[in-house]
Amino acid sequence: MTSKVIKPVKGTRDFYPADQAWQNWLYLKSKVISESFGYQEYEGPILEPYSLYLAKSAEEIIKKQSFIIPTKDKMDQANLVLRPELTPTLARMVAAKEYSLVFPLRWWSWGRFFRYESPQKGRGREFYQWNLDLLGQDCPNADAEIITIGIRFLASLGFTPDEVVIKINDRKYLDSKFNLINISQDKKLSVFRVIDKKAKLSKSDFRTMLRKEGLSKLQIRDLELAIKDNDYSQESPWLTELFSSLTDLGVADWVDFDPAIVRGFDYYTDTVFEAQPRNKQGRSLFGGGRYQNLISDVGGTREIGGV
Amino acid sequence: MTSKVIKPVKGTRDFYPADQAWQNWLYLKSKVISESFGYQEYEGPILEPYSLYLAKSAEEIIKKQSFIIPTKDKMDQANLVLRPELTPTLARMVAAKEYSLVFPLRWWSWGRFFRYESPQKGRGREFYQWNLDLLGQDCPNADAEIITIGIRFLASLGFTPDEVVIKINDRKYLDSKFNLINISQDKKLSVFRVIDKKAKLSKSDFRTMLRKEGLSKLQIRDLELAIKDNDYSQESPWLTELFSSLTDLGVADWVDFDPAIVRGFDYYTDTVFEAQPRNKQGRSLFGGGRYQNLISDVGGTREIGGV
Repeated sequence: MTSKVIKPVKGTRDFYPADQAWQNWLYLKSKVISESFGYQEYEGPILEPYSLYLAKSAEEIIKKQSFIIPTKDKMDQANLVLRPELTPTLARMVAAKEYSLVFPLRWWSWGRFFRYESPQKGRGREFYQWNLDLLGQDCPNADAEIITIGIRFLASLGFTPDEVVIKINDRKYLDSKFNLINISQDKKLSVFRVIDKKAKLSKSDFRTMLRKEGLSKLQIRDLELAIKDNDYSQESPWLTELFSSLTDLGVADWVDFDPAIVRGFDYYTDTVFEAQPRNKQGRSLFGGGRYQNLISDVGGTREIGGV
Repeated sequence: MTSKVIKPVKGTRDFYPADQAWQNWLYLKSKVISESFGYQEYEGPILEPYSLYLAKSAEEIIKKQSFIIPTKDKMDQANLVLRPELTPTLARMVAAKEYSLVFPLRWWSWGRFFRYESPQKGRGREFYQWNLDLLGQDCPNADAEIITIGIRFLASLGFTPDEVVIKINDRKYLDSKFNLINISQDKKLSVFRVIDKKAKLSKSDFRTMLRKEGLSKLQIRDLELAIKDNDYSQESPWLTELFSSLTDLGVADWVDFDPAIVRGFDYYTDTVFEAQPRNKQGRSLFGGGRYQNLISDVGGTREIGGV
């Protein structure tokens, strides 16, 4: 007998009580870890104006993968979007109270997010995500704190450094390489986007995409060498301090420098990181990075960086 | 200085840490009460197919107040809607596992809902709502249990029976009045909708709307008398048993019979109730009712009623 029960939307999940118990367990894990490091819980709306993401965020996600609700009310100045991520909301909330909030500010959140892409194993169109941000402390120690909390969360779920690696890079370090190879600043973001896709591309497709961005054969060869070069010590005091801090925090076994990590969001300016399974099976477990300009990009007047 | 910070969408709320702490407190109150009565937590998707609400639910809410996302993928057979309420999702989930779930089934949920109406005090376009349902036990005792848990929740927030009243009615009782007045079955739902709006209408507007539904002057006079008549004892054994049960449960002070209560959802078949401030200031605090046909309306084959 074929069931005629109305089906849920593709890429969404029903949480029967056993599933909900698992969700609650995961939420409580993230709550305990976040709050033990002094982070405060917050939450934003699920509906945000399209304009919030246009300035920064990730062009591909917003233009191709967002759920857009056409405005039907003159109160709404822009189309509405189901939030694909939380950082722009955080930036908007912090900018709105930039003179009354106390910095450094440690906030965390556990919420639902939406991407209108093809549903695939491990990621639906509607999914839960943990967010953790430290704002107003612009030094590698802050980045190390966030990365360490992420590692403590993985450890609390039973993962070991044999199973997961957190790959770390510095976009400023890549910038300095771009300068040496004469890749101009206006091409930077689009070249970042190509590098971000590298793991999913064949070598020749990767080169073709770089050529489309206007890079010469010589520049491509130099870029390929640059994103393999794992000695940052002479060129990035930031990374040197970050890795030293991570060693002090006792998580050196979990972290690796990887000059090919850039992450998909346009607002990252410095450190970027991504937790990956060591066996390369499955998606990344978490990721993030430092954003120095996002608060002013959404209208703030103070210079407040975050990670 | 005018702030140029990007504004949130009208009718949505930012939950700064102090607001989120209050949300968590409210969530935990509802969790403790629900689970002390043996209810299990569940959750559904925020995105649902438009078709789920079309069959039943509330015509006005779905057609005029829902956030609709046009389909852009052939995987989605109907337009997507941000859920305005949870009962149709619950019905869909129960119908999908109608032969493996154990009845009576006690489920509760705390989640976010969406209505694209003009934001007003006490209700945004995006809001949180507690849901509590008891399925597979078709007697007034089940209705009394749900109403009592709602009252315990209000009491745990510090409300007293001097401040809040739960008004209770039975749609079947109204049906029997309709029969006496010769209001035909096909007009039933639309007359219910007019009665549901009565509190917000002047006497003459109320009459005008009933006349538009095709009722004669005589029928309108009889209907007005019927929804004032507060003696159900000869005509509704269901209400008699329900009020007796509520007295046994020690909440008689909180409840009143009100033949003008019908609630806005089309799927209610029997008991309907609504918690209102005694001073008539502000919106209703919660509401609900018994739905005997919703599981089969979404495609189930077993006859499972719920409240």
